[in-house]
Amino acid sequence: MDYREESLKRHLEFRGKIEIKNKFPKIETRDDLSVAYTPGVAAVSSFLAEHPDEAYNYSIKGNTIAVVSDGSAVLGLGNIGPYGALPVMEGKALLFKEFGDVDAYPIVLSTQDTEEIIKTVKAIAPTFGGINLEDISSPRCFEIEERLVKELDIPVFHDDQHGTAIVILAALINSLKLAQKNKAEIKMVICGSGAAGMATTKLLLKYGIKNIVLVDSKGIVSKNRTDLNEEKIKMVAVTNPENINGDLAEALKNTDVFIGVSAPNILKPEMIKTMADKPIVFAMANPTPEIMPDLAKEAGAFIVGTGRSDFPNQINNVLVFPGLFRGVLDNKIKVITDEIKIATAETLASYLPESELSPEKILPSVLDKQVGRAVADGLVNFG
Amino acid sequence: MDYREESLKRHLEFRGKIEIKNKFPKIETRDDLSVAYTPGVAAVSSFLAEHPDEAYNYSIKGNTIAVVSDGSAVLGLGNIGPYGALPVMEGKALLFKEFGDVDAYPIVLSTQDTEEIIKTVKAIAPTFGGINLEDISSPRCFEIEERLVKELDIPVFHDDQHGTAIVILAALINSLKLAQKNKAEIKMVICGSGAAGMATTKLLLKYGIKNIVLVDSKGIVSKNRTDLNEEKIKMVAVTNPENINGDLAEALKNTDVFIGVSAPNILKPEMIKTMADKPIVFAMANPTPEIMPDLAKEAGAFIVGTGRSDFPNQINNVLVFPGLFRGVLDNKIKVITDEIKIATAETLASYLPESELSPEKILPSVLDKQVGRAVADGLVNFG
Repeated sequence: MDYREESLKRHLEFRGKIEIKNKFPKIETRDDLSVAYTPGVAAVSSFLAEHPDEAYNYSIKGNTIAVVSDGSAVLGLGNIGPYGALPVMEGKALLFKEFGDVDAYPIVLSTQDTEEIIKTVKAIAPTFGGINLEDISSPRCFEIEERLVKELDIPVFHDDQHGTAIVILAALINSLKLAQKNKAEIKMVICGSGAAGMATTKLLLKYGIKNIVLVDSKGIVSKNRTDLNEEKIKMVAVTNPENINGDLAEALKNTDVFIGVSAPNILKPEMIKTMADKPIVFAMANPTPEIMPDLAKEAGAFIVGTGRSDFPNQINNVLVFPGLFRGVLDNKIKVITDEIKIATAETLASYLPESELSPEKILPSVLDKQVGRAVADGLVNFG
Repeated sequence: MDYREESLKRHLEFRGKIEIKNKFPKIETRDDLSVAYTPGVAAVSSFLAEHPDEAYNYSIKGNTIAVVSDGSAVLGLGNIGPYGALPVMEGKALLFKEFGDVDAYPIVLSTQDTEEIIKTVKAIAPTFGGINLEDISSPRCFEIEERLVKELDIPVFHDDQHGTAIVILAALINSLKLAQKNKAEIKMVICGSGAAGMATTKLLLKYGIKNIVLVDSKGIVSKNRTDLNEEKIKMVAVTNPENINGDLAEALKNTDVFIGVSAPNILKPEMIKTMADKPIVFAMANPTPEIMPDLAKEAGAFIVGTGRSDFPNQINNVLVFPGLFRGVLDNKIKVITDEIKIATAETLASYLPESELSPEKILPSVLDKQVGRAVADGLVNFG
């Protein structure tokens, strides 16, 4: 199937992917109208004006999130603006509904100004029980998320960062089981310093990985670099404990794990050959990974994962965001803390019994519709 | 039925009135996922980035509007804020879907600042094919609407103003047929100078009513008044051609039509007795009209209409907004002009054949689901 042709055809046929459905009984009588709308609704309005927290129970707020994007970093397409972003955000909404029974609404923005985005999201927040930020470019995404988490009383989650970090952590947990390696002892390279790379580094440090070397397009991020932005300077203090320097090839020597969220074909077979025993390779660049799985395997990789559905071990956010927000809404969680992110990764990792794990199967299928419920249930103690 | 009790019960049971429904086939295979989401969706995103106008055909934009409120003037409840407004906006969304097959999404705002509201609506506009403003207090509603109409390339419509004005005009057209009176010759009082009163006055003037006297809580709006705000000063120039002064009772003498969008029980039977032959009384204050229909009839009113469903002649916006936006979206109308408003009123008025008109039936039932389609079809030449 030509996915691109078929996708264009189907989007035109259906005019987008989501619509509104009414939950109340059909309006057939004056009584129906009087209960759904005036005069009956006035009782609900008065009640919620007095008890805004009850909006979670008496309105859509309790099951509704916004999927907000400014279109500045869409898929691998870059800054293509709000109309380019809309089909992706609709796709996200479709997945939220189908895999998590979460009502998600796409909001694409006509502004890419950090302050205006923050103000806009704050202004529309009352309708929503959560905000999923999506495809907002780095480094603006860090400030936007941080400020909104602080200034809003509903959870705010930039999926490109944390969804990716969580699903990578889940894949890593199971890979370490298979390789019989200990999280505190491994060496790891994270290649790529965009939203996903930075968030993954932070979460894995929090999880207890001690030796992470961050590599960007200029090489290893170290104390010796003079070209680092503010976010990367913060990373220097907590990564690269041996302060090694050089390029990706240098970084990978004797390393247990490679995590790529960077660019196509930058990981060479020779580099894998210099890694430690049982190399774990997550080549997540989309759509073309840092190395093709067959090449990586040939070079000795023990486990290879990618973001793609046409290879084994698809490491994809869709295993995380529907269930995570399902759990967040069910348990009225106000902030998605690192503890929640790690718990979510652990729940996802343990979804497959150890007997079913193999180097070709480190995560459940992205099509498994039970995963969302399991992930949500893992958050029951965080409410 | 106790509408208030039942409404509270049902809102809690269903947790609000609307949800998201996916239009694409269920995601069962990797192919399904690849067409709805990555990698296939990238083709749609790239295409829309290049051709934003095609968003009307390839995304939800073509059938989606926002129902935006700041909760500053909700029903008869006043300034009850966003959470109080949410059930009403959901109700509106439900009616949009059920009576016009329009996907409407409630956006309630945490700000009541005019500039912030304008900026927010502009920022979120790309998702939507139209904006229905709702329950925003006067006079801020005038500037907010005017600015948004000017600054956005999608239609913006404040329903409290224009939906009300259009349905009143439709009711008036049929009432004048029954009373065999000519629009250019009648005298009319419009009582109430909020959003609805002002918009109705403007639309009826545009329609060709020559002699309208506007009455507010201080009495007749005339050249002699020194307490008028900017909006009312504009009205002095085009209403009250004989520059009469005094109270409502004075205004009504020898008047053919009373339109009330004001306060409960302010129209007295004695006043109706001083009106011209075959008095037409639209007492639209909600929930308690300016005069109860039986009292008005006893005092000699020829036709009585109210906003209520429990009396004959319910004059309610729901006869207008679903079909109007259906037609606006179908015909990709960018601005809802006065001509469109008048055409909509005329379509609605002519929906009932003259043989079916009577003083007890001047408009179709609000439950008639064919009205929306008819109103939409009336706009086919405005695209």
